[in-house]
Amino acid sequence: MDPSASGLAQRLAEADQSQLLRFWNELRPDEQANLTLELQGMDFQEINGFFKNAMETSSGSKHEKLDARMEPVPREVLGSVTRDKENLKDWEQTGLHCISQSKVAALLLAGGQGTRLGVSYPKGMYDVGLPSHKTLFQIQAERILKLQQLAEQQHKIKCCIPWYIMTSGRTMESTKDYFSRHNYFGLDKNNIVFFQQGMLPAMDYKGKIILENKGKLSMAPDGNGGLYRALGNQGIMDDMERRGIESIHVYCVDNILVKVADPSFVGFCVQKGADCGAKVVEKTNPTEAVGVVCKVDGHYQVVEYSEITLATAEMRSADGRLMFNAGNVANHYFSFSFLRDVVQKYEPKLQHHVAQKKIPYVDSEGQLIKPDKPNGIKMEKFVFDIFQFAKTFAVYEVLREDEFSPLKNADCQDGKDTPTTARHALMSLHHRWVLNAGGHFIDENGRRVPAIPSLKDGTDLPIKCEISPLVSYGGEGLEKLVKGRGFHPTLTIDEHGVHELVKNGV
Amino acid sequence: MDPSASGLAQRLAEADQSQLLRFWNELRPDEQANLTLELQGMDFQEINGFFKNAMETSSGSKHEKLDARMEPVPREVLGSVTRDKENLKDWEQTGLHCISQSKVAALLLAGGQGTRLGVSYPKGMYDVGLPSHKTLFQIQAERILKLQQLAEQQHKIKCCIPWYIMTSGRTMESTKDYFSRHNYFGLDKNNIVFFQQGMLPAMDYKGKIILENKGKLSMAPDGNGGLYRALGNQGIMDDMERRGIESIHVYCVDNILVKVADPSFVGFCVQKGADCGAKVVEKTNPTEAVGVVCKVDGHYQVVEYSEITLATAEMRSADGRLMFNAGNVANHYFSFSFLRDVVQKYEPKLQHHVAQKKIPYVDSEGQLIKPDKPNGIKMEKFVFDIFQFAKTFAVYEVLREDEFSPLKNADCQDGKDTPTTARHALMSLHHRWVLNAGGHFIDENGRRVPAIPSLKDGTDLPIKCEISPLVSYGGEGLEKLVKGRGFHPTLTIDEHGVHELVKNGV
Repeated sequence: MDPSASGLAQRLAEADQSQLLRFWNELRPDEQANLTLELQGMDFQEINGFFKNAMETSSGSKHEKLDARMEPVPREVLGSVTRDKENLKDWEQTGLHCISQSKVAALLLAGGQGTRLGVSYPKGMYDVGLPSHKTLFQIQAERILKLQQLAEQQHKIKCCIPWYIMTSGRTMESTKDYFSRHNYFGLDKNNIVFFQQGMLPAMDYKGKIILENKGKLSMAPDGNGGLYRALGNQGIMDDMERRGIESIHVYCVDNILVKVADPSFVGFCVQKGADCGAKVVEKTNPTEAVGVVCKVDGHYQVVEYSEITLATAEMRSADGRLMFNAGNVANHYFSFSFLRDVVQKYEPKLQHHVAQKKIPYVDSEGQLIKPDKPNGIKMEKFVFDIFQFAKTFAVYEVLREDEFSPLKNADCQDGKDTPTTARHALMSLHHRWVLNAGGHFIDENGRRVPAIPSLKDGTDLPIKCEISPLVSYGGEGLEKLVKGRGFHPTLTIDEHGVHELVKNGV
Repeated sequence: MDPSASGLAQRLAEADQSQLLRFWNELRPDEQANLTLELQGMDFQEINGFFKNAMETSSGSKHEKLDARMEPVPREVLGSVTRDKENLKDWEQTGLHCISQSKVAALLLAGGQGTRLGVSYPKGMYDVGLPSHKTLFQIQAERILKLQQLAEQQHKIKCCIPWYIMTSGRTMESTKDYFSRHNYFGLDKNNIVFFQQGMLPAMDYKGKIILENKGKLSMAPDGNGGLYRALGNQGIMDDMERRGIESIHVYCVDNILVKVADPSFVGFCVQKGADCGAKVVEKTNPTEAVGVVCKVDGHYQVVEYSEITLATAEMRSADGRLMFNAGNVANHYFSFSFLRDVVQKYEPKLQHHVAQKKIPYVDSEGQLIKPDKPNGIKMEKFVFDIFQFAKTFAVYEVLREDEFSPLKNADCQDGKDTPTTARHALMSLHHRWVLNAGGHFIDENGRRVPAIPSLKDGTDLPIKCEISPLVSYGGEGLEKLVKGRGFHPTLTIDEHGVHELVKNGV
């Protein structure tokens, strides 16, 4: 398996990546075999091309001029849960009808590891500490199950929502194993399709691939936009076509409130005849770090917060709202035909984005170095990069407190997007469901708790309340369980009934 | 000094408060003297009347019906910094003109101790950890000083903004001493007038005054609405009249971003011919714990979040905004004549609100008890209780991120309104001032920092940047100092110039 004999050394030399074999003679035979295996699967000319294009794009001065080319989302492509209330029911009905025809799929982006969260397993397996201790994966699975039931009940027809789950090389085995151990949370395993996004090597600023140790390349997933390439090369589009899927809801694993295959969103996009749709929440503070959906040179795009000036971020419409207020929450709709065109025609045209990173590496003496400032790049595509190719685009605005609470970081002081904020967001939503269904809560002194909890002692602890997705997908169907009743928290409602877990045996 | 001889025992017996002398014979002579002094100054019949009225009001079922009687603020009484941009300059000019005529006073509500903040001194003396380590009092003093200068420069006339500071029995001496030690932060001491709000005893549910120890009543300030009684009985209205004050800006000590005597707010209210005005921020989440300014039975009022149902809190206007979205930030405008009428005519008509509290007390055996559930009440009036008497009311909507960040709690995980959030809010505002004046920031690697900082490692640390109020009251006048320049944080700009406090000697 000598790299010269196999032609590998030659290929590397031609691609100017011979440094990858620098420590070859110091490796054990098994390490040599692993490295060879890794290198043989890689197309170095293609990777060099990615690097060249990505660096050229990122060093361009286009950002300076972006502000002037931006236009807000026109009202006619926007649907809003607060401003179009009269249409909500109709959109939901359309979506439920599509679901009942088994034409709607959910597609989960779950390639990331919980590194910032401080765990080594896939984020979807995280337990944020709800009374039920359900993980993100379980919550999503149960929402799909419930939504299938709702569509079946309404249309008297058996249906399914296939669930495509994109993992990465790092998370595939543990994810599949986790679902298997939990019997797919009651879903039919034939309707859950795992596939794997690609990986790309990290490179230094000169385009040399970085070794993370003497026998191993520094590899990272190719961004959530790696979705499209993976959909093609792993036969997922064929699977969708075979099943007759017409609408796909794509979302990220980390949002505990995600309405998987949201019938209102799907129905809205279908009624609009949209190729592609984005669910957004209103950005209300100009300096909030969120990308905004807008038009640039007439094409839809997500503009990242770091690309625009404060003056642009602060611009307001006549109604006082921020002009660029369509905050991206990584919840997208695709028609099947558009997604197929993306995979076949558009995605290869996209360049990778450059993320400058601190990348641990072995130096020429073989020492492992952990740099304290960025020393190289990772190359990524973003799932929203293909918005520009949509002929008919739709934007659907929802309420942040109802639909968006991502889990990104470990609990820490002043932490944003932590297990605590995710848990509180879910319990607060379920508390509101109970109130709106006519129930109420009673405190330890027997007094009725006001609808809006007061800020006691500086902590804003929500009422402890969790409702299983198997009981309610979006707040529906609770009247018969809670109307006119007072509950002592912790309240849980699941498929076995209503439970009050009261401390001290009250 | 025997209570029977002085008639005190008789007065207490008539008011059914004889329990206050229960431990008389166990007290030392100095304790007896102190208790006598405290009791002699109190009107027990009046206090019993307060109790009776407050309890009757609070136990009424009016809350049940409040929702149906509420109307939102009509557009014609509303001025908005986001929706009325074309008028902002004009309002500010009117306000500055009034200030230049020395017709505008600031009135600070500073009676509270920093109990929730974990300190025993007045909150205004708190240092939130800014680079300058200025306290809330100093920041406010310097804003007044700067605003006087701006008015003087524009109108070529010497002027002053008298500053009325309401303390309580607990904070008066330390507050006065603090200002004196710091030479009134450059203000003329003759234009700072301290006065003191009243105290009321805590009472149990039967109306008996509570002893916090054998010789001392449990006393608490009578709420920020104690302002009006104090204004009258300490001659403050006479002082205002003598100075020719026509407009008063009332605000709470704890808001680090407060625009003291804000000329735009004052000018808006003056142009509207308002008796009374409230500065508000938009409430965007239905369950946010903030009172909202609205009309009830045709009169303006602040409705507390705990008084309304979720359904009302969630109501939206056609434009998608919450219908009741005028979030009270305890920033009010009064015309002098209205305030005089309030003090003389209206305030005595108001009943106290009841706050149920856990109040430490001595039981009949003389044991000190710390109850673990509420055992009594404190009686308070609120500063906004008198809105209902205004004939012409105005509401002025400002941006939360520019003007409201209260300091209420000590730093702790998931803490709201902490020293950290206050410090970040101020530095974030000043960062934006620098950007909008044409400056920018450079990071440790020499790269330009994007206008909107990214969320790194889960913490949302703002650029460290502080601009002295002596340099800029509201962002004005910074171009000549920062335009076209790049700064390494920490950046401070004060009366001595522009400073970059760079670590590691870069």
